Amino acid sequence: MSASPLAPGSTIGILGGGQLGRMLAMAAARLGYRTVIFDPDPNAPAAQVANAHFGNAWDDGDALAAFAEACDVVTYEFENVPVETVERLERSEPVRPGAKALRTAQDRLLEKALARNLGAATAEFAAVDSLSDLKSAMKATGLPAVLKTTRLGYDGKGQARIAVETDAEEAFAAMKGAPAILESFVHFDREVSIIAARGLDGTVRTFDLVENVHRHHILHTSTVPARIEREAAESAATIAGAFLEALDYVGVLAVEFFAVREEGSHKLLVNEIAPRVHNSGHWTEAACTVSQFEAHIRAIAGLALPDFHRHSDCVMENLIGDEINELPRLAGESGVLVHHYGKAEARPGRKMGHFTRLMAPAGVDSTGL
Amino acid sequence: MSASPLAPGSTIGILGGGQLGRMLAMAAARLGYRTVIFDPDPNAPAAQVANAHFGNAWDDGDALAAFAEACDVVTYEFENVPVETVERLERSEPVRPGAKALRTAQDRLLEKALARNLGAATAEFAAVDSLSDLKSAMKATGLPAVLKTTRLGYDGKGQARIAVETDAEEAFAAMKGAPAILESFVHFDREVSIIAARGLDGTVRTFDLVENVHRHHILHTSTVPARIEREAAESAATIAGAFLEALDYVGVLAVEFFAVREEGSHKLLVNEIAPRVHNSGHWTEAACTVSQFEAHIRAIAGLALPDFHRHSDCVMENLIGDEINELPRLAGESGVLVHHYGKAEARPGRKMGHFTRLMAPAGVDSTGL
Repeated sequence: MSASPLAPGSTIGILGGGQLGRMLAMAAARLGYRTVIFDPDPNAPAAQVANAHFGNAWDDGDALAAFAEACDVVTYEFENVPVETVERLERSEPVRPGAKALRTAQDRLLEKALARNLGAATAEFAAVDSLSDLKSAMKATGLPAVLKTTRLGYDGKGQARIAVETDAEEAFAAMKGAPAILESFVHFDREVSIIAARGLDGTVRTFDLVENVHRHHILHTSTVPARIEREAAESAATIAGAFLEALDYVGVLAVEFFAVREEGSHKLLVNEIAPRVHNSGHWTEAACTVSQFEAHIRAIAGLALPDFHRHSDCVMENLIGDEINELPRLAGESGVLVHHYGKAEARPGRKMGHFTRLMAPAGVDSTGL
Repeated sequence: MSASPLAPGSTIGILGGGQLGRMLAMAAARLGYRTVIFDPDPNAPAAQVANAHFGNAWDDGDALAAFAEACDVVTYEFENVPVETVERLERSEPVRPGAKALRTAQDRLLEKALARNLGAATAEFAAVDSLSDLKSAMKATGLPAVLKTTRLGYDGKGQARIAVETDAEEAFAAMKGAPAILESFVHFDREVSIIAARGLDGTVRTFDLVENVHRHHILHTSTVPARIEREAAESAATIAGAFLEALDYVGVLAVEFFAVREEGSHKLLVNEIAPRVHNSGHWTEAACTVSQFEAHIRAIAGLALPDFHRHSDCVMENLIGDEINELPRLAGESGVLVHHYGKAEARPGRKMGHFTRLMAPAGVDSTGL
């Protein structure tokens, strides 16, 4: 495709108004675009920096029609937007990425099956719709294993670990009748992720591989570069590119991996994909000329995707709940970029902000291998 | 002072809603602050990214009262805000920087007199209120000289060059009766500027000295580091610090200098100060962890001002009028940060955007001396 890019002054609609939408809106503004947020939450953080906000329900047809009317292109900032909402908008507006990517990312079974189809490794897995399914699934995956709802899980919600066979019934009950997937428990050495973008013209670019540490199922730190062999990093980029192609994707996609030790090096297993900008890509606003947020806006607007120019090594750390009160102290450190999401209430477990500490200039070999 | 910083969620009022206000509003949002713009222009670019906009006249008392009521602290983004407006707001709200800095920067005579008082060099100058003043002033400054209105001049407006004595009458007429200042014409080798910030606690920090090139009296490029001796760069920082102290300043101040050759090195003459973030500081958003915009917001919010951590050398270039159409091409270059101000109409001479090209990592000696 060689269509001209979205003209400055055009309006980008964003489904979802959390901190990701907020950072997307800011990136859009720097490129001269207007933004309109659709999010039922009247206090959506993104609405504060956007040009307009529709605070309506996801199935409010009139509101969606008015939203579509206001937008030149539509995107989404979280994967729990109903697929029906996106399908409805797709009838009149370009939605990038589209319903196909959303549907896949919302369903762990579809997601894992696609990964396997693309030649990527994953944990062993099996569908579980009944207790008897679960019992045969345990034979396939072995134990320990993790039972997860196939849909709407994030940050560890909707998951139950099965260590021994007698855990099965309680785990199944925890799914509350929702379709589930049993996955073999992966004894990973570390967790890594990659943020990749595909432009309207099909150009694929990746940011450098990130090493992630989670606490209580929530991302704690992301370190760049990841301490991992070049071959593993290259395979992550290849897999991300394959997902982008397979999903006819336009925009930024994140792929999370488990890195397992295998014969002295690391093998990557796809854990999950996120069809959006991602918490493990927040470091890019501090350490790259083009951030993941700008990369996403560029992609959906038909602008170029050059190399993202990482100038520094760095560590990003989330500020959860009242950790946000550390922000003034962190702001006193040289080489630290702080980010506050503008949320009024610092509830426990809530992502309130993050900071990125820049370290050595990029290019020095700092993978520690 | 050790007052606690402005709490996240607080509101910063910005007088003026141009691109500088827009970039300030974005920096404020990243720190969790809300912003309200006061600007009579209904299409003020800053309003698009702020939480609210008062589109009222500068002397609208009711609107100013409502604006003050909405704000926890007030600042301004251009120096032609009426001093009376700031004085009125100062009765109920902290205004940073305050009326004193504004009054000084609005009057070239006060500004130059202050520079001299602080021990800084300037061009020769004399006040001109009549044609006979002008004739004696020419004796003081020598020719060529430049006659300028003392107030409300920027980007070369309100200026007339006097090359020979017979130019005097025409130049005086061009002032249209406004109080004026005659300044000796400076045969400068290059133009440099420095962006400095002073915190609420009195901490002073400076960004690295910038080398500027103007075209048609409008800034064309800013290059960092400036090709100049370390001693000259240090004197610029000292002078900026002296201005900040003398004006009880809180926030970001720009000082522009002429660098003249003197015995094989450079001597700096203060040209003018700007009591605000400045076009010659736009590079900081691309090459530093803390930009001039964030530095200003931090200062007025009582947050810390650490070293700003410049990670790269760079050149910023303005996009004037229809040069903005180059933005999609520039966006295709790696290491280039582009910025579009969201203005609808690309009128000739209008600042529409800018871009910053990153070069070597900072720290390499690239001053070319």
